[in-house]
Amino acid sequence: MSTATLSLSHKSLDWLTEANMNSRLFFQRWWEEQNVEIQEEVRKLVDAGQLEFVNGGWCMHDEAATHYIDMIDQTTLGHRLIKDQFNITPHAGWQIDPFGHSGVQAYLLGSELGFDSVHFARIDYQDRAKRREDKSLEVIWRGSRTFGSSSQIFTNAFPVHFSPPMGFGFEVDDDSICVQDNPLLCDYNVEQRVNDFINAAVGQADVTRTNHIMWTMGDDFQYQYTESWFRQMDKLIHYVNKDGRRNALYSTPSTYTDAKNVANESWPLKIDDYFPYADDTNRYFTGYYTSRPGLKQYVRMLSGYYLAARQLEFLAGRRSAGPNTFSLGDALGIVQHHDAVSGTARQHTTDDYAKRLAIGAFEAEAVVSSALSCLTNSGSKDQCATPSLTLSQCQLLNISFCPRIEEDIPEGKSLVVVAYNPIGWNRTDIIKIPVNDGDLVVQDSMGNTIGMQYLEFDNVISNLRNFYTKAYLGISPKQVPKYWILFPVSLPPLGWNTYFISKASKKGKSTSSYTSVVELSLNETVEIGPGNLKIFLSSASGRLERMFNSKTGVNILVQQSYLWYASSSGDSDPQCSGAYIFRPNGSTPFEASRSVPLKIVRGPLVDEVHQQFNSWIYQVIRLYKDKEHAEVEFTIGPIPTDDGTGKEVITRMTANMATDKVFYTDANGRDFLKRVRDYREDWSLTVHQTVAGNYYPVNLGIFIADKKSEFSVLVDHGTGGASIEDGEVELMLHRRMVYDDSGGLVGPLNETVCAEDSCEALTVRGKYYIGINQLGAGSRWRRTTGQEVYSPVVLAFTHEFCRSLMMEGFSSAWHTYMSPDARDNGNNDNGNDSGGNITHVRIAQDLTLIRWEDAEYSTLAKVELKKMFLGKMIKEMKEMSLSANQEKSQMKWMIWKVEDDNGGEPTAIKGGPVNTSTLVVELGPMEIRTFVLTF
Amino acid sequence: MSTATLSLSHKSLDWLTEANMNSRLFFQRWWEEQNVEIQEEVRKLVDAGQLEFVNGGWCMHDEAATHYIDMIDQTTLGHRLIKDQFNITPHAGWQIDPFGHSGVQAYLLGSELGFDSVHFARIDYQDRAKRREDKSLEVIWRGSRTFGSSSQIFTNAFPVHFSPPMGFGFEVDDDSICVQDNPLLCDYNVEQRVNDFINAAVGQADVTRTNHIMWTMGDDFQYQYTESWFRQMDKLIHYVNKDGRRNALYSTPSTYTDAKNVANESWPLKIDDYFPYADDTNRYFTGYYTSRPGLKQYVRMLSGYYLAARQLEFLAGRRSAGPNTFSLGDALGIVQHHDAVSGTARQHTTDDYAKRLAIGAFEAEAVVSSALSCLTNSGSKDQCATPSLTLSQCQLLNISFCPRIEEDIPEGKSLVVVAYNPIGWNRTDIIKIPVNDGDLVVQDSMGNTIGMQYLEFDNVISNLRNFYTKAYLGISPKQVPKYWILFPVSLPPLGWNTYFISKASKKGKSTSSYTSVVELSLNETVEIGPGNLKIFLSSASGRLERMFNSKTGVNILVQQSYLWYASSSGDSDPQCSGAYIFRPNGSTPFEASRSVPLKIVRGPLVDEVHQQFNSWIYQVIRLYKDKEHAEVEFTIGPIPTDDGTGKEVITRMTANMATDKVFYTDANGRDFLKRVRDYREDWSLTVHQTVAGNYYPVNLGIFIADKKSEFSVLVDHGTGGASIEDGEVELMLHRRMVYDDSGGLVGPLNETVCAEDSCEALTVRGKYYIGINQLGAGSRWRRTTGQEVYSPVVLAFTHEFCRSLMMEGFSSAWHTYMSPDARDNGNNDNGNDSGGNITHVRIAQDLTLIRWEDAEYSTLAKVELKKMFLGKMIKEMKEMSLSANQEKSQMKWMIWKVEDDNGGEPTAIKGGPVNTSTLVVELGPMEIRTFVLTF
Repeated sequence: MSTATLSLSHKSLDWLTEANMNSRLFFQRWWEEQNVEIQEEVRKLVDAGQLEFVNGGWCMHDEAATHYIDMIDQTTLGHRLIKDQFNITPHAGWQIDPFGHSGVQAYLLGSELGFDSVHFARIDYQDRAKRREDKSLEVIWRGSRTFGSSSQIFTNAFPVHFSPPMGFGFEVDDDSICVQDNPLLCDYNVEQRVNDFINAAVGQADVTRTNHIMWTMGDDFQYQYTESWFRQMDKLIHYVNKDGRRNALYSTPSTYTDAKNVANESWPLKIDDYFPYADDTNRYFTGYYTSRPGLKQYVRMLSGYYLAARQLEFLAGRRSAGPNTFSLGDALGIVQHHDAVSGTARQHTTDDYAKRLAIGAFEAEAVVSSALSCLTNSGSKDQCATPSLTLSQCQLLNISFCPRIEEDIPEGKSLVVVAYNPIGWNRTDIIKIPVNDGDLVVQDSMGNTIGMQYLEFDNVISNLRNFYTKAYLGISPKQVPKYWILFPVSLPPLGWNTYFISKASKKGKSTSSYTSVVELSLNETVEIGPGNLKIFLSSASGRLERMFNSKTGVNILVQQSYLWYASSSGDSDPQCSGAYIFRPNGSTPFEASRSVPLKIVRGPLVDEVHQQFNSWIYQVIRLYKDKEHAEVEFTIGPIPTDDGTGKEVITRMTANMATDKVFYTDANGRDFLKRVRDYREDWSLTVHQTVAGNYYPVNLGIFIADKKSEFSVLVDHGTGGASIEDGEVELMLHRRMVYDDSGGLVGPLNETVCAEDSCEALTVRGKYYIGINQLGAGSRWRRTTGQEVYSPVVLAFTHEFCRSLMMEGFSSAWHTYMSPDARDNGNNDNGNDSGGNITHVRIAQDLTLIRWEDAEYSTLAKVELKKMFLGKMIKEMKEMSLSANQEKSQMKWMIWKVEDDNGGEPTAIKGGPVNTSTLVVELGPMEIRTFVLTF
Repeated sequence: MSTATLSLSHKSLDWLTEANMNSRLFFQRWWEEQNVEIQEEVRKLVDAGQLEFVNGGWCMHDEAATHYIDMIDQTTLGHRLIKDQFNITPHAGWQIDPFGHSGVQAYLLGSELGFDSVHFARIDYQDRAKRREDKSLEVIWRGSRTFGSSSQIFTNAFPVHFSPPMGFGFEVDDDSICVQDNPLLCDYNVEQRVNDFINAAVGQADVTRTNHIMWTMGDDFQYQYTESWFRQMDKLIHYVNKDGRRNALYSTPSTYTDAKNVANESWPLKIDDYFPYADDTNRYFTGYYTSRPGLKQYVRMLSGYYLAARQLEFLAGRRSAGPNTFSLGDALGIVQHHDAVSGTARQHTTDDYAKRLAIGAFEAEAVVSSALSCLTNSGSKDQCATPSLTLSQCQLLNISFCPRIEEDIPEGKSLVVVAYNPIGWNRTDIIKIPVNDGDLVVQDSMGNTIGMQYLEFDNVISNLRNFYTKAYLGISPKQVPKYWILFPVSLPPLGWNTYFISKASKKGKSTSSYTSVVELSLNETVEIGPGNLKIFLSSASGRLERMFNSKTGVNILVQQSYLWYASSSGDSDPQCSGAYIFRPNGSTPFEASRSVPLKIVRGPLVDEVHQQFNSWIYQVIRLYKDKEHAEVEFTIGPIPTDDGTGKEVITRMTANMATDKVFYTDANGRDFLKRVRDYREDWSLTVHQTVAGNYYPVNLGIFIADKKSEFSVLVDHGTGGASIEDGEVELMLHRRMVYDDSGGLVGPLNETVCAEDSCEALTVRGKYYIGINQLGAGSRWRRTTGQEVYSPVVLAFTHEFCRSLMMEGFSSAWHTYMSPDARDNGNNDNGNDSGGNITHVRIAQDLTLIRWEDAEYSTLAKVELKKMFLGKMIKEMKEMSLSANQEKSQMKWMIWKVEDDNGGEPTAIKGGPVNTSTLVVELGPMEIRTFVLTF
């Protein structure tokens, strides 16, 4: 006998964020407006378990286009509110709507939050059919192969969707038949509705293990008038229980999970993830991995910036008044929504997300500038006097716009560049800024002149700069800068260094070695690269032919090109490609061009290859002297659709590698998962979409391997990637459509930008990074480089700084940095630079949170907190859950029986308890630990 | 300075009756389901004046298609509930949606209920424009020329519609801009919304007298989620008052009326009514006067039946258990709604109204049968033993279906017919029932054989009977009866008589004088009529030529025909004819036929003329020996629309009378108003619709007059009528359309009837009555005949009654009747049969209500209550308001100043206080008095 458990869908919180464009969790907005009586009533419902907070984040985040740090941040933000207001820690994950599900969600944003369960509706339709068949919709999910059963979670995939069974939705305008229990009325129907209810319940029980089933009584845009639902549910529960054949009750996800847990059932095991998601033959939700690349890039850029800003806010000491990072945190929190960063919101909604991000970024910029001013000025960590000079930043350096640093530098003065390194290890990088003066020198804070390189502005960036400056700021800059200057910086962990750019004195004039050389390609093959990594291009076709690392000896024949899939217009089957759906019209993309003119620029720091593939695809490949990868900067757009065809633009790299259908993509920027083309581990896949059905989300990177080498590509923002033929890697970089995919956008995905009276389709510019490694060596490169891509060096400037001041005794401050390498070298058997790095320092009111992580496949690393916070006295330290809403020592997890679990999995390596006197923290591979420190 | 008074629209009560098809006042349905706490809260709101009951009837009744008795009944039903539950008497009329407004509403269903005001939105668009211009939207309305200022009411016609000003509707899905008063949010707009509010208020103040304006904050289908409205109104009131330029407050119609009253303003005078209503050039709401004639007829038939049933229920003594008349009262109450009896509800809604009426009628039939059984059996008024025989009725006599009385009457037994007269004077009538036996005799209760007449069944009624019996009952009767028999009955006021039909003994066989004779028309002109009234038809054309009354000498040349207007399909202007709108395609209707075959049937009681105008229009004219009018029975349908054209079928009578554009129509079956073609008394009419714009509602009748004669037509149910040319009278009898008029029906008005698999358009059968009188003499005929049409003789039957029983001493009971003529003859200077008649006896629980009325233009009449209730002891007697919710002596009316009121109107004649010992009630012309009697 089945017991029907009604569970109220918390979509009511979910949809409101979509509909109302609020920057803060909608519940909080509502909550703050309530009077004390209502608040008390809500607290009573919460305490009684009648109202349960599920997920509890700032939004119901996406799982494909999000970075795990953003997922943690937005969840922490919500959990903090719930803890403060209700002293509650949520126990159930509620990801009912996102379009596929990530392993990181299970092992990190589930188990590590102390969740017992996660619930969702959207899994592949073939997967669902099979799971209904063998009652395996509910599983024990181990999302991490590293942690295995130590981070598992009970997972409930709904048998149909997240709406109630047909005929039991009771929104005001639904046409479900209400329960009429007045026997005097003609439409009295209690027995009929009870029978309907029991039939629906039995149908669901037939595909569910144990006696308990859940009905999600809600949907998108529901509960506009709660009475219309509760009145019917009250009656149904009453009459069904009176009938006696089944038992119905109001429930919550946790209550349901408890019932499942005590049922002593064995559950199927699920590993890895639930990507990609399709809800029908031609409806693969793999377009949204790339949709709105500009928004995705902005979110990722601000995510890294927010992390740096929070560090600096902490280091300089948070001010009680003045600008802070909360509004950026809020905006980043809400934009993780599965209809936000996913690129599937309507244009005006997306504009609002971007606006809120920009407002937040503007305020955070003031925090960063102020903190850096303060820190570099005072030279002290403990006090920050009013700084005597003010640094500022350049948010539009991506379009090379920063009037302040383009100005002429007067004789005897300097442009000061402060470079801050938000990551936990020593780092060198190349800084690149636009200038007008062709006669500059760069000095470090010790007064040493350092090597630099000039690059000329090209037309592509000039045009972009002019149009987008007009679009963003409504102004037309008088002229474009003449040059970029590039110079290397060297930065300590969580620290900064200062550089001074001044007019060269007559005698110290820059030599020819500091300038770039433009070269015509005369040979058949052009070799590029000032460092170990070399690339070879055909001067005939202008295209990449080979990559070779002289240090490792890795040598790979590889072609690279740009192509586009024609979007299906849904002619034969009404399904079109759109914001959600990727449905190419056939599996063969069109090549942008077969041969491309080459422009080669060489210099002491970087070599560049410029390639204009067609009128709207432009690429620069850069090889830096000290980097082991090729940086590819693409500029794509405006994508033409005047031929009536939507286009989904990819870059494709084809290596001569035997990959046997296998490739690897990351989960939310964290671990890599093995993907096999045209194959699913959980069921026998019927292939309908040979391209769209093989796309996976890429947030950190994608790689392939053969028996000798690994070919890896890292990305600077979330996108879709695949390997459609052996040896191939492709990334989808931009999309523009002319039809709607009926997913909710109500219109085609067709982003345009307007400046004055002129509108054009969006141009996107981004970077990806190609690394070649010996088999097994790629992992470290991907993690280290990935971290540096996510957390670029933060720059701040001040102009017309009187250089003489530097000479008057302030110089020490200009190269102070916060924390020495805090690794406990005595116990560190890791021996490389990437162990035990600080990735995240977060300060919310009196909380200081630190997250540690170690690289994949390494062993225990140790970090000395005392070294990390030199000069700050740690009074108390508590290890916490991932969202810091409960002490780790008090977290409990349910025990579940797993089918065919022979206990043979290796034990996960995790750090032990922290010694309270030495304060040395151990970290296992991939581990994240969260602490509250009191200073 | 204007004060904006927000008034919450009580449309929330109104629309629910439309949307939910409830048989009872929606508020009552809601109210009964609330717990004691909510009920207490509501009572507090009511007591504090925050929640006001307006109108307070069972529904917001229509004013064009309703009979005044139904209007009173449905209002009384509602007022009773409100009095019982809240001890409240409503003080404001709230007729915001009906499509035009009747004088009866003002003087009877307004002033006589103790209402101070009535409020509505719908008046003619030209009228409104003119009234906005001279600020005469608000008036003092004297709806009765007889009663003048003694029955006036403050009347508020809204300046636009019953919705709030543009941009201030706040239903969940409205796109009005909400007040955003959180200054931290981007869409903060308090100042803007306050300015919008004040601009809207000032705009309204510019067309309104005094400093007070009303905003009706609601509309159809609103307040699904009240919060969405109140939240915004709270904010608007707060910020507008804070702004200080205007004062806004929650208000009610009564509060608003109070403010208007104390303003000491003079108001324009309005007389007569607000018919017809148009809201645009081609949108005359005059189609609905006729829409759904079947429903309208059913409602009117049951209205009269209900009145009789309530009388009999009272006379026999109401049972505490068993069938009663409440469900019929409820159903009749709700069907008075302005989208019910109006014919403008959707088909399934209309079906539900009809179903509820049928259920009510079925129960009332049991009451009537039981009461008559009891009364005729016991012979006593005070006690009603279990009757030894059971009478039953025949609800389908209109399609001649009554199997029980069609059965053969065995030798020695009788079919007993009890005839009850629900009106207050002695009455004779002709009874007509279907039988199979051609050899019957009819005897009265004294055993005297009385004159009778046989008529043969014709094909038209046979076909109707067969199809509709199948449609209504799902059965196919084996055969149709062979004959009708007709015989005269003579009945006392509120009393009955009994007739016995048996097989003729051999010797007493019926003579030839008792049978009808079918006659071929040989002469050029055929004269018809066994009594004073003669009609003359052309045997060439088959059509009526002349009417002549040999007693009065009135002689009128008159033609009669059937025609149809082609409904506009909205080709040039998108407005079509539909359920609401009458928009003929041109002003000339198409004639059904120019000549028609005649069939003449003559007999001792009645002469008949049968005319088949075309395949779907059939007519029988009857002239009875003892009646001074011609009865016309029409059978129209199925109206063909296979030519793609809707048809609106009329009958038109063209008399040789010089009427100078003038004709007269009644208001809700009560008084007659003068109508002038292409003219309005209140403004200079611009004529766009020469036909539709001259149509008026007809419930009792329509007449024209010249210097010598009156030509009157009475109807048996509500319909539309006009006089499009001098001397013409036309009635619209049936409508079938192929397009929607966008009025809310969502589809064309296209009534069909299905029997088994066969569907056809509705056929309607009805009667109208033509009377010709000397100038000034028509009034009495119209009132008396109208009353008899409204309250036909009620028949009940029992079969196989053993005649010998009658001989054994029961005979006295068979002709007992309840009340002797209660007129106080000594003081009755009226001298005719129609003075002081009882029209309405109503019993609701412990209430006994009586309404009296006297014929037009007469003087005081007196009625002795003691005679009326012979055998019942009247203990106490109170005079009450029309809806009996307050004592007349305690009613108060506001004093209003009227512009140009010279006080020159004649004083209305009204009856004085009742002498408590003699209990003689005086009645002025047209007066209705209501009493509560305790026995």
